[in-house]
Amino acid sequence: MKHFTSIEDVDDPQQLIQQVVDLKQNPTSSSVGRQKTVGLIFFNPSLRTRLSTQKAAQNLGMDVIVLNISKDSWKVEFEDGTVMDGISQEHIKDTVKVISSYCDILAVRSFATLRDREKDYGEQVLNNFIEHSSVPVISMESATLHPLQSLTDMATIADIGIKKPKVVLSWTPHPKPLPQAVANSFLQWLPAIEADITITHPQGYELAESFADGFMQTYDQEEAFKDANVIYAKNWSSYTDYGATPNVNGTWTITPEKMALTNQAEFMHCLPIRRNVVASDEVIDHSIVYQQAKNREYAAQAVLQNLLENL
Amino acid sequence: MKHFTSIEDVDDPQQLIQQVVDLKQNPTSSSVGRQKTVGLIFFNPSLRTRLSTQKAAQNLGMDVIVLNISKDSWKVEFEDGTVMDGISQEHIKDTVKVISSYCDILAVRSFATLRDREKDYGEQVLNNFIEHSSVPVISMESATLHPLQSLTDMATIADIGIKKPKVVLSWTPHPKPLPQAVANSFLQWLPAIEADITITHPQGYELAESFADGFMQTYDQEEAFKDANVIYAKNWSSYTDYGATPNVNGTWTITPEKMALTNQAEFMHCLPIRRNVVASDEVIDHSIVYQQAKNREYAAQAVLQNLLENL
Amino acid sequence: MKHFTSIEDVDDPQQLIQQVVDLKQNPTSSSVGRQKTVGLIFFNPSLRTRLSTQKAAQNLGMDVIVLNISKDSWKVEFEDGTVMDGISQEHIKDTVKVISSYCDILAVRSFATLRDREKDYGEQVLNNFIEHSSVPVISMESATLHPLQSLTDMATIADIGIKKPKVVLSWTPHPKPLPQAVANSFLQWLPAIEADITITHPQGYELAESFADGFMQTYDQEEAFKDANVIYAKNWSSYTDYGATPNVNGTWTITPEKMALTNQAEFMHCLPIRRNVVASDEVIDHSIVYQQAKNREYAAQAVLQNLLENL
Repeated sequence: MKHFTSIEDVDDPQQLIQQVVDLKQNPTSSSVGRQKTVGLIFFNPSLRTRLSTQKAAQNLGMDVIVLNISKDSWKVEFEDGTVMDGISQEHIKDTVKVISSYCDILAVRSFATLRDREKDYGEQVLNNFIEHSSVPVISMESATLHPLQSLTDMATIADIGIKKPKVVLSWTPHPKPLPQAVANSFLQWLPAIEADITITHPQGYELAESFADGFMQTYDQEEAFKDANVIYAKNWSSYTDYGATPNVNGTWTITPEKMALTNQAEFMHCLPIRRNVVASDEVIDHSIVYQQAKNREYAAQAVLQNLLENL
Repeated sequence: MKHFTSIEDVDDPQQLIQQVVDLKQNPTSSSVGRQKTVGLIFFNPSLRTRLSTQKAAQNLGMDVIVLNISKDSWKVEFEDGTVMDGISQEHIKDTVKVISSYCDILAVRSFATLRDREKDYGEQVLNNFIEHSSVPVISMESATLHPLQSLTDMATIADIGIKKPKVVLSWTPHPKPLPQAVANSFLQWLPAIEADITITHPQGYELAESFADGFMQTYDQEEAFKDANVIYAKNWSSYTDYGATPNVNGTWTITPEKMALTNQAEFMHCLPIRRNVVASDEVIDHSIVYQQAKNREYAAQAVLQNLLENL
Repeated sequence: MKHFTSIEDVDDPQQLIQQVVDLKQNPTSSSVGRQKTVGLIFFNPSLRTRLSTQKAAQNLGMDVIVLNISKDSWKVEFEDGTVMDGISQEHIKDTVKVISSYCDILAVRSFATLRDREKDYGEQVLNNFIEHSSVPVISMESATLHPLQSLTDMATIADIGIKKPKVVLSWTPHPKPLPQAVANSFLQWLPAIEADITITHPQGYELAESFADGFMQTYDQEEAFKDANVIYAKNWSSYTDYGATPNVNGTWTITPEKMALTNQAEFMHCLPIRRNVVASDEVIDHSIVYQQAKNREYAAQAVLQNLLENL
């Protein structure tokens, strides 16, 4: 593994998922990170990702440098060839070359803007890191993918211990438009565990074909929930009418009544979660979302360990 | 000691105070914190508390994760049962459950709002941490108490070495309304050392009876200063007309002339201090406020060490 | 070396420069920093300085505490004797005395305001740190000097390996007024390596005589570039009409055509650089600016190591 920015960077996803499960059961830490530095670069806010990745790095003995890039340092330019006489103070390529020269591994978070689909799906920020970094790059969520979350999710589902579970990815309401990254990434990783997959969302919220094709899709949430072993809730904005939030018929909030349609399914969500909007308190309070969040630490640790061993 | 959020959490306050004094005289550090992580969570700004707690943790070999919660991550919801379709992005209970899962000890700072006395004195934020954290919680100042400061203050007074000193808690002016936390907490801890205690403040600035009852109280600052061994200066806003700053007759700024009324008293203040408003330059420049601030490190270290030994 | 705030703090600049060059070639790290804490205090944003100094400290085994002073803590007062009833919450002397009591070394960054030349060149912030700190102070750029950058620059030039190189300090355009600190400091350090020095800038951009006197100065950029071995590009605002940016005739952007006038000169810049304003993409992409940035780590490490060995 050279970078960790998508499942395509991973030689053997099944093995990596198993490593996360194993770390969870026996979180002994290696000291492979001693004398090594990871730089965590945030273009966007973060809680779980920030803390779990920092904790994972420290578990391995690494030094951690955290940079909130726009608050602690400079406004960054992304376009090539620009005459930089405006507000941007440094070009991303210079930023990345310099930061990576002080680190052994770089991790970066940068959300979709939801304004320009081509740019977002072109992964401008992440690709600049990959191109210009002299060290391995970890995505802590990019415009279109969130591989640390998905690796966590796969380990969490595997750990439930059901053989070929029925997993439902269900769209849920949210008061503001969100990226498709978590949903895209979840679908990209699901084939790495053996599962029956159903996607359910209102009309107008179809995900990109490159991620959704080949999976069962339905506009009928209750139909989808039948016999489910795992309900994975997530909001996303429209991919086709990019970033829009078309009106939705009916209520998509996940309630105990809907969970009762399932086969005693576990409820999962990547957090933060809008209570009583995405799902009702009762659903969340009886869910495995905290174990899922804790697994973020083990996922980050497995990824860091793999990258460190290949340095 | 399970948490450290008030003197009521401490089995033997005298012993803990003595530990702080001893650490000051011999700051050898234990390595009981190795492989342990403390999360420092700030809802409000901090300098002394931030630095001294971080230093104390590092003295013990701990890894430290700092989170400025509203700037680095999300807007937090505190009410139960809310339909979270507004600006709050995560419920405090989810935040705390997740953060505590990555840490061995959590420390949190959250000031009073001074808008709603019932909410402030109900310690909504701190109590959410205590209720939902899976690890010990340290208060780095809550709405109504500042126990790390008070522990520091007791050790500082004890270290002066006067038997049963006369300690005066004096209200002082300040350009904006401040919480009562430092004053409340000071009074809560004073009985742990043997001292004669007098509180002096203008009319309208009475502290809550639950903290002030049983102590000598006077509106006459100069009378109070007579024979004092320690002058502890602090501003607070009105408790009765909650958060208000009623007009004050006379000047309450502490001057060399007022200090001359005392028995060569030491001047103390928790800092930051508004010079020539709370006290004049000359008073501050001949005071023990810097030793007091340095003792914050030893207080935090004693508390962390106790909690770590009980993990 | 007691502090590191200017070349005047350094007993033997040549030796220190050589130490940086040696560290670059053999970056083995000493563990002289173990159990020691450096506080990095930022009044202004920072990327290279923040990361390279943190990395250098960690290389030496130090604990690092980072404080973005106005965002994480308080508004600071700099005037003596003020009645602090306005927005300033803590006096710089109190801030420094307290912070330094928690650290073994303090590093501080504070830019020129460009409003009041006397205050800026009086180095109010830095001098308050020097005066009130109980531990050694490192300047991470002050109002008028940037010694860590200059030490880096000298090591970078020395490492090019040309005997008595012709070094040209060239003013370049920039969309907003910048301090003179990097240019001043560069001139202050150049005599420590053997070099022929030429300064070139438009009329109205003369640097302070105390820094520029004794060096060749010309308004003709192309003339200056002839036979140069090193082009050191930097913008600064007017010193005489303090902080102003008088109109400039001709274009001062550094282009491949201008570089062709030199003796295959290396292009240097302290970064961040406004591409196609300060210099064109092609010049930057064929320059040694990234090696220069990486050398910041070794410069900080050499300085920290010297200060630590003298504690």
